[in-house]
Amino acid sequence: MNFQSKIKTIEWVDTYSKMVDQTVIPYEYKFVNITSGDEMFEAIRNMVVRGAPAIGIAGAHGVILYAQELEKICLTKDDFVAKLIEKAEYMKTSRPTAVNLMWAVEKQIEIIKASNADIKGIIEELKQNGIKLENEDIEINKKIGDFGAEIVPKGATILTHCNAGALATVGYGTALGVVRSAFAKDNSIKVFADETRPRQQGARITTFELAMDGIPVTLITDGMCSYFMKKGMINMVVVGADRIAANGDTANKIGTYTVAIAAKYHNIPFYVAAPLSTIDVSIKSGDEIPIEERSHDEVTLINGKPICPLKGVNIINPGFDVTPNELITGIITERGIIRPDYKQSIKEVFKN
Amino acid sequence: MNFQSKIKTIEWVDTYSKMVDQTVIPYEYKFVNITSGDEMFEAIRNMVVRGAPAIGIAGAHGVILYAQELEKICLTKDDFVAKLIEKAEYMKTSRPTAVNLMWAVEKQIEIIKASNADIKGIIEELKQNGIKLENEDIEINKKIGDFGAEIVPKGATILTHCNAGALATVGYGTALGVVRSAFAKDNSIKVFADETRPRQQGARITTFELAMDGIPVTLITDGMCSYFMKKGMINMVVVGADRIAANGDTANKIGTYTVAIAAKYHNIPFYVAAPLSTIDVSIKSGDEIPIEERSHDEVTLINGKPICPLKGVNIINPGFDVTPNELITGIITERGIIRPDYKQSIKEVFKN
Repeated sequence: MNFQSKIKTIEWVDTYSKMVDQTVIPYEYKFVNITSGDEMFEAIRNMVVRGAPAIGIAGAHGVILYAQELEKICLTKDDFVAKLIEKAEYMKTSRPTAVNLMWAVEKQIEIIKASNADIKGIIEELKQNGIKLENEDIEINKKIGDFGAEIVPKGATILTHCNAGALATVGYGTALGVVRSAFAKDNSIKVFADETRPRQQGARITTFELAMDGIPVTLITDGMCSYFMKKGMINMVVVGADRIAANGDTANKIGTYTVAIAAKYHNIPFYVAAPLSTIDVSIKSGDEIPIEERSHDEVTLINGKPICPLKGVNIINPGFDVTPNELITGIITERGIIRPDYKQSIKEVFKN
Repeated sequence: MNFQSKIKTIEWVDTYSKMVDQTVIPYEYKFVNITSGDEMFEAIRNMVVRGAPAIGIAGAHGVILYAQELEKICLTKDDFVAKLIEKAEYMKTSRPTAVNLMWAVEKQIEIIKASNADIKGIIEELKQNGIKLENEDIEINKKIGDFGAEIVPKGATILTHCNAGALATVGYGTALGVVRSAFAKDNSIKVFADETRPRQQGARITTFELAMDGIPVTLITDGMCSYFMKKGMINMVVVGADRIAANGDTANKIGTYTVAIAAKYHNIPFYVAAPLSTIDVSIKSGDEIPIEERSHDEVTLINGKPICPLKGVNIINPGFDVTPNELITGIITERGIIRPDYKQSIKEVFKN
């Protein structure tokens, strides 16, 4: 399809990483330049950049930034390589759930280990690889979008949770890539966006990027999904993923599992859209996916103001939940749609 | 049980209605005096007073206020009665979903129609009836609480949605009345409170009143319920109701239906706690319950600040949803727990 999105979320520019600052959307749309490895670590942790594929690229850029810093302190090549791998491993720990981060950083580590070049040469190879991963991400998303668009019914309303859009990737998006490709074929497609408390990525980011691209979007609060499903106002659900286990169990933003249960109850198809790099075949089931516990302020404060008493109230804030494979109709990837039995079909897709 | 709550939400005082201003909780705990019928209409509409049983009492108080105003303009008794009934009918329209409002105003209309007294005498009878309804509400809630407490397992964690507490009633609460009675027997009882977007009554009011009464409460966002259910951290769900149809279908705050589906999926009992005045035997099923569409600002603004782009984004804001009877384990009332088949069991409870 030919849908042109206006958004490029993250990009390597000469000696730094340029990214959309997602903490100020929808109030501002501005870019920040990340110029050191530690700055990148904090940008990932504080969600200046977020979304599993985007933080993968951010991690890859972070490795280049660390390499540039290490170059300045005049190490031997062996020491440079050893210290850089150490820094790269550290970068992987900036967020625990999304496996794309580990995957992309690992791609850079492979470059470092395999390179015969000198320090300057390694850095150049890391930059080229970073840019290659960026371009591949957009290409992959367009393929995901096109495979997904084939199964979107004419005039469908698609519910999504959180933001798996252009702003969660380098561009185009995974779940919203499906929306973009479907919309390019049929401009009667509509989106319902869950607010996605606590961080409100649906309200702040999904509505913002769809409005920017002229795709009709309705914002609903997280508890409303079943009401609209029952009324027949939602035809399918498409969400992104932070990590998919070998059996298809899918970790995604907290609240996804609740939407999946509601979809099942109403016999509405529930799809996950994600690149193959999100599938972690090293883990058998969702039980093994680490779930990040995030700051309690995300629950208790909105725009810096408390929404509950700050004394005498307990908070728990898991950032993600796991949707079991039995609730997932299909996983839309750059190689087509994976269907149950996932244990078998995921194994097969990685064979080819 | 002997649980003593600190809260009295609404109370008739001599010539006016005194109520907790629920729009400023949890930032302030203050009372407002409502001195005219139109002020009461606005207080109900703007949710200064909210919660089905509480707005029932507020409506009854509103009729007294209108009566006091009409007394001043020297009408004949017949004209007074005709105009007061007109005002009372208008008061019923301040909010459409909760049937307790219609029920309590109707109780006042019965007094007006049946009275042989003069205007002063009618007003006195309306005041006495208003105070009687207040006292009955607390007594009913304590009975609901005690019946409910019998089925709360030892050390249970109870999930609730919205606020069906002391602040949704004259005092003690319906769903939280069950919690209070259970806690009086077993102080290892805990509550999980859904934030309840858009108006956040869970975050703002339920946590506030439970903390005030020293009952342990954990605030979660609406999408999280399934995550904690799967982990075995929630033993039962108890919610209030705004209107229950003759077949047990229950209208309650938007989001309740989603919680009920999640509870069913995890085999967790889902109870509704409500006085019999919430049951509207005149309607066969939940399809006939009018659902209030509320201001879009409730979705787009929190504490006055936008959480999404204000242009290019559609909003729908149904205030309530209907949980079908098949998802409801039991309805806890002042006459005991009503169980399926509800069509039959509700008919029987109203026979006695």
